[in-house]
Amino acid sequence: MGIVVQKYGGSSVADAAGIKRVAQRIVNTKRDGHDVVVVVSAMGDTTDELRDLAQQVSPLPPPRELDMLLTSGERISMALVAMAIAQLGHTAKSFTGSQAGVITDSVHGRAKIIDISPGRIEAAIAEGAIAIVAGFQGVSQDTKDITTLGRGASDTTAVALAAALGAEVCEIYSDVDGVFTADPRIVKTARKLDSVSTEEMLEMAASGAKILHLRCVEYARRHQMPVHVRSSFSQKEGTWIVPTPEGEQPVEQAIISGVAHDRSEAKITVVGVPDKVGEAARIFEALAAVEVNLDMVVQNVSAAATGLTDISFTLPRADGTQAMAALAKIQDEVGFDKLLYDDQVGKISLIGAGMRSHPGVTAKFFSALASAGVNIGMISTSEIRISVIVDESQVDEGVRAAHTAFDLDSTEVEAVVYGGTGR
Amino acid sequence: MGIVVQKYGGSSVADAAGIKRVAQRIVNTKRDGHDVVVVVSAMGDTTDELRDLAQQVSPLPPPRELDMLLTSGERISMALVAMAIAQLGHTAKSFTGSQAGVITDSVHGRAKIIDISPGRIEAAIAEGAIAIVAGFQGVSQDTKDITTLGRGASDTTAVALAAALGAEVCEIYSDVDGVFTADPRIVKTARKLDSVSTEEMLEMAASGAKILHLRCVEYARRHQMPVHVRSSFSQKEGTWIVPTPEGEQPVEQAIISGVAHDRSEAKITVVGVPDKVGEAARIFEALAAVEVNLDMVVQNVSAAATGLTDISFTLPRADGTQAMAALAKIQDEVGFDKLLYDDQVGKISLIGAGMRSHPGVTAKFFSALASAGVNIGMISTSEIRISVIVDESQVDEGVRAAHTAFDLDSTEVEAVVYGGTGR
Repeated sequence: MGIVVQKYGGSSVADAAGIKRVAQRIVNTKRDGHDVVVVVSAMGDTTDELRDLAQQVSPLPPPRELDMLLTSGERISMALVAMAIAQLGHTAKSFTGSQAGVITDSVHGRAKIIDISPGRIEAAIAEGAIAIVAGFQGVSQDTKDITTLGRGASDTTAVALAAALGAEVCEIYSDVDGVFTADPRIVKTARKLDSVSTEEMLEMAASGAKILHLRCVEYARRHQMPVHVRSSFSQKEGTWIVPTPEGEQPVEQAIISGVAHDRSEAKITVVGVPDKVGEAARIFEALAAVEVNLDMVVQNVSAAATGLTDISFTLPRADGTQAMAALAKIQDEVGFDKLLYDDQVGKISLIGAGMRSHPGVTAKFFSALASAGVNIGMISTSEIRISVIVDESQVDEGVRAAHTAFDLDSTEVEAVVYGGTGR
Repeated sequence: MGIVVQKYGGSSVADAAGIKRVAQRIVNTKRDGHDVVVVVSAMGDTTDELRDLAQQVSPLPPPRELDMLLTSGERISMALVAMAIAQLGHTAKSFTGSQAGVITDSVHGRAKIIDISPGRIEAAIAEGAIAIVAGFQGVSQDTKDITTLGRGASDTTAVALAAALGAEVCEIYSDVDGVFTADPRIVKTARKLDSVSTEEMLEMAASGAKILHLRCVEYARRHQMPVHVRSSFSQKEGTWIVPTPEGEQPVEQAIISGVAHDRSEAKITVVGVPDKVGEAARIFEALAAVEVNLDMVVQNVSAAATGLTDISFTLPRADGTQAMAALAKIQDEVGFDKLLYDDQVGKISLIGAGMRSHPGVTAKFFSALASAGVNIGMISTSEIRISVIVDESQVDEGVRAAHTAFDLDSTEVEAVVYGGTGR
């Protein structure tokens, strides 16, 4: 049997009891005959506590030092998991991101993995040991400094390591049972999906579903790595994220996989932009210069009479102030009228690989939202996703209406476990 | 001006306020024109808390993993100190023991420094940055695993780094004002020493004075590195530990520097050992095989009539059970009568470089103890130290009696700060 990579999130290793439970599960997998490599996050809220500590010392800590600080969180959890495994009579060795060969660029706080050189992990496996690797962290190729990959990036570490080791599967454990058709906290009848394609999962992650880190799914797709999302609190099968083989489409599948939502964005509208070649480019250059990631972008058709157009886009709320400042600086130069800022928006996305061959989907989605009294502000589509921006207060109604309209509601009565309970 | 290495203990960086205070002191030294390299311990009781966490998971954690766990403590404090310095407008870079080039052997939990390769520290200094280095930790030369140097070994890191960098002084900051003639918690009239020779400090550290780690003083002596022991809570001068230049003795100095005591030892007596060549060797070989560090060793003169002798020695109480077991195993082979174990003992040591040329010292010491009703169990001497083993309950009286007999009592009335207050 081959290598299994397992990733355990902070809620799974929140305390000594959780660490022992996880250790037992790891040992069981080893006893089944697999080589096991484990990626762990920091215990519970450790990372947030460390951030608070940094805030007490410095409101704007140097990113290099913040990374040095935060990476101690996984160091603690991985050593404890290794100890708990030893207590069960198996050999485990823990490795920092640097020791595990997670080589990154030098962008502290959101470094990207450049390469994985898992020589020490392979050596540990060859000795019969279980390797425990710190998620979320790596070492800069250029400066040899410790880096972090950004919030939630332990998933990415796990999939990248699985790909580098040629693992047969990457299992992502958390406190939820798998991927659901919608957030069960909003839609009581949401169903767990048995499987979903990597492409759909990618759209879900980009649309606000927090179950998997976006970059992790991108990695899984690029390396054709099967990912199994499941709960560390039960033995139930979770959701398989299945790579679609090149040039092949599943013969028959549900048209719509799920409804995702996102309340983390804000909307900026640049009003009265002269409708000339290059004006829009100058606006987006100004935003790129301050490294703001845009999501949806919509430009209204120019009113011929005025020669002016409006450009709207969404972006993470955290970047709102910076983006507004950057745009205000170029107002005179570009000659637009004014800027509107709205952070009371939400995004609802319908995801399904069958969508492209079923033209009625958009109409049914918008009609369901209209019946629920949800007003649509912006629209953006991809081949397997339709997203709309609505008023933040209408997100829940909109998600429920779409979920019902596309027959996603479960007929089974079961207690659904989905985040937020602290488990 | 040259390099100053400063070491701050856990009590100095116990919280955000402490870290900011320490950062200000570091920046002041930098502004005075020095290049500054800082060695930090873990915050407050962090190391003990991490040990507790390990205990919850495994009663006997693998040493490699325990080292991985414990080293996260300094990682946290050093990053926070670097942030606090940045907040004051200076550049600081933190380095783990491994990054700082602290190369050790592979004995987890009490690794010894083999070499220091401070290339990255020198590069940071050359850039004008303040280097912050994790104390207590290094990296194994053979296995590349993370090691720790043992409790209190951050002092050793500091002095070793100071020697490798050719620093002009190594300043050791804690919550006490310096080295005292005796523990001020026992002797209210104890005086702070302005300076003490490295040799005397070595005897004091070996005799139970907790102010400096023994290996740190050994390092300072070997590398002729001046050490300044002082408080991070005041601007007062502390105690200078001054290397005695080869072949030179200070012309005039106080005969007795201080009285140290130690309550951490136990005494074992092997009764009725056949007084033949090699019998003692077999006893000490058995103890060496289980890696027990002996302190004082005394063999009574053999009673000619019986041909039997008694051998007594002291050792750390923590090693008591293991030593007794090792000796019990060879009882038949060696043919001794029985083993006696006493962990209710204490050691009082009189230290002073002038002692060897003043023959009355021993007599005066023993007479002072006798007047105080303190009974002497074992005696051991070096050129600059006399140690006696007494009943544990008589340690305080004995220390006070010796302190007074050798005119060490201060005539000044001052509030003495000495540990135990949680500052």
